[in-house]
Amino acid sequence: MVEPVFQRVALIGIGLIGSSIARAAQEFPGLAGEIVANARSQNSLDRVTELGFADRCEIDPAKAVAGADCVILCSPVGTYAELAERIAPALKPGAVLTDVGSTKQSVIRDVGPFVPQDVHFVPAHPIAGTEFSGPDSGFATLFQGRWCLLTPPPGTDEAAISGLRKFWELMGAQTATMDAAHHDRMIAIVSHLPHLIAFTICGTADDLADETRQEVLQYAASGFRDFTRIAASDPVMWRDIFLNNREALLEMLGRFTEDAQAMARAVRWGDTNYIEDKINRSRKIRQSLIELKQA
Amino acid sequence: MVEPVFQRVALIGIGLIGSSIARAAQEFPGLAGEIVANARSQNSLDRVTELGFADRCEIDPAKAVAGADCVILCSPVGTYAELAERIAPALKPGAVLTDVGSTKQSVIRDVGPFVPQDVHFVPAHPIAGTEFSGPDSGFATLFQGRWCLLTPPPGTDEAAISGLRKFWELMGAQTATMDAAHHDRMIAIVSHLPHLIAFTICGTADDLADETRQEVLQYAASGFRDFTRIAASDPVMWRDIFLNNREALLEMLGRFTEDAQAMARAVRWGDTNYIEDKINRSRKIRQSLIELKQA
Repeated sequence: MVEPVFQRVALIGIGLIGSSIARAAQEFPGLAGEIVANARSQNSLDRVTELGFADRCEIDPAKAVAGADCVILCSPVGTYAELAERIAPALKPGAVLTDVGSTKQSVIRDVGPFVPQDVHFVPAHPIAGTEFSGPDSGFATLFQGRWCLLTPPPGTDEAAISGLRKFWELMGAQTATMDAAHHDRMIAIVSHLPHLIAFTICGTADDLADETRQEVLQYAASGFRDFTRIAASDPVMWRDIFLNNREALLEMLGRFTEDAQAMARAVRWGDTNYIEDKINRSRKIRQSLIELKQA
Repeated sequence: MVEPVFQRVALIGIGLIGSSIARAAQEFPGLAGEIVANARSQNSLDRVTELGFADRCEIDPAKAVAGADCVILCSPVGTYAELAERIAPALKPGAVLTDVGSTKQSVIRDVGPFVPQDVHFVPAHPIAGTEFSGPDSGFATLFQGRWCLLTPPPGTDEAAISGLRKFWELMGAQTATMDAAHHDRMIAIVSHLPHLIAFTICGTADDLADETRQEVLQYAASGFRDFTRIAASDPVMWRDIFLNNREALLEMLGRFTEDAQAMARAVRWGDTNYIEDKINRSRKIRQSLIELKQA
């Protein structure tokens, strides 16, 4: 019997990411001795019981975290401040407190002040997901070959960090450590801005006249379809991400808008070299992704 | 032996679309008795000969179209005016002259004036493609389950239209007829604008500092990747499309930009209802696509 990285893991929130961790813990040895699941609604927990991937369900987050060696916040980032306040007194000394949120400065801001001195706070962000949500949508291999970024504040216990790295690596992820502010800027361009754009263009299309709207759906194959996949993501999760990475997102949108206006100008005035140059650069980026096996 | 829709088909341009038509004609009976391929470069034609999907290759477009019952322009739309002028005197009386370009008003503007009275001009646009280009990239099933939109000018011979419809339907496509101006506006939002956005965001990311650029590639899985697939398309083809659907594209970009700025304002001021509402609309559009089997 392999000694697990954590004896007891409490998952606060059990949607796509939480339920994937629970399933991975069931499938891959050495992750967790016991999985405790918490959700905001009893309905979700009833479904978790039916699906059978948790050892125990607790509707009270404080009860869920009691005695856990690792507590992972897996709910939308907008819920973290209130959750942290509620669970803080129940955290076990020496436990690792972490999360899976897509914004890291906000997590440090919202959770940090509540973390007891003897608890190790290691914010994390697994770059994995699908357009589906809820406890039914998770699967054990979601993190295989994906990255999990850790943004521990300066001075965080090294053993806690390496324990959490090992946990993610056993789920098949690669891990890297970086500064939270740097993380937020980088993720703003690779994830948050593409989502904002995808949500927006769906709305722009939906505002067209009735006849055209139907056609947009019918003829979506020519590019639009690729945008709608990411636009199908969970509304509350994404609302919280946008609001909690506001500055970096607005800056990246500002840059993008300038670039789109420059392209519009080139189209208006027939600047063929400018247009071709931009398209060629895009191709090179795609090529790099293929070489890095990220596409 | 089935009588083919067209005895001889001349393909002017033999990239992704042209070579897919040639391959389909080889594979599916009843399409064409003979395929003549034309390309701008001898290198491309040599490759076509090696690949063996054409009955004959002609470097001179006028020779390629001579005696053809159907001539299909499959090169970038920016080449059509010059090509039309060159091939017009060689077109066979009663032939169907068509194309596969993504902009239809420009085709009527550029090709229309050269079309002899006894030739049937039926502009068309198969909504199909991949991010690959060149004669190696085509395949016989590219059009299966896809749409081909026909935009014949008023008064076009009905037999010519229905012959071309049959040709596309035998390749597995569904066909519809519409006005060219309407086509261009609708395709601007479902295809041209998404491509412009994808090209632009790749450039915005590429302009970031060296360190971040490497990370953008590394962590692209979170959304950016979906944009880069369509950004890998052929630069000359897309340059020509943008320049030849300028007005509709700039109008749709204008609408999109307004909507993106409204979303930015909601993010800045924390307007949670606005953000959630927009994301929920996007989800519904994705759901409609799934129901229409377009996603």
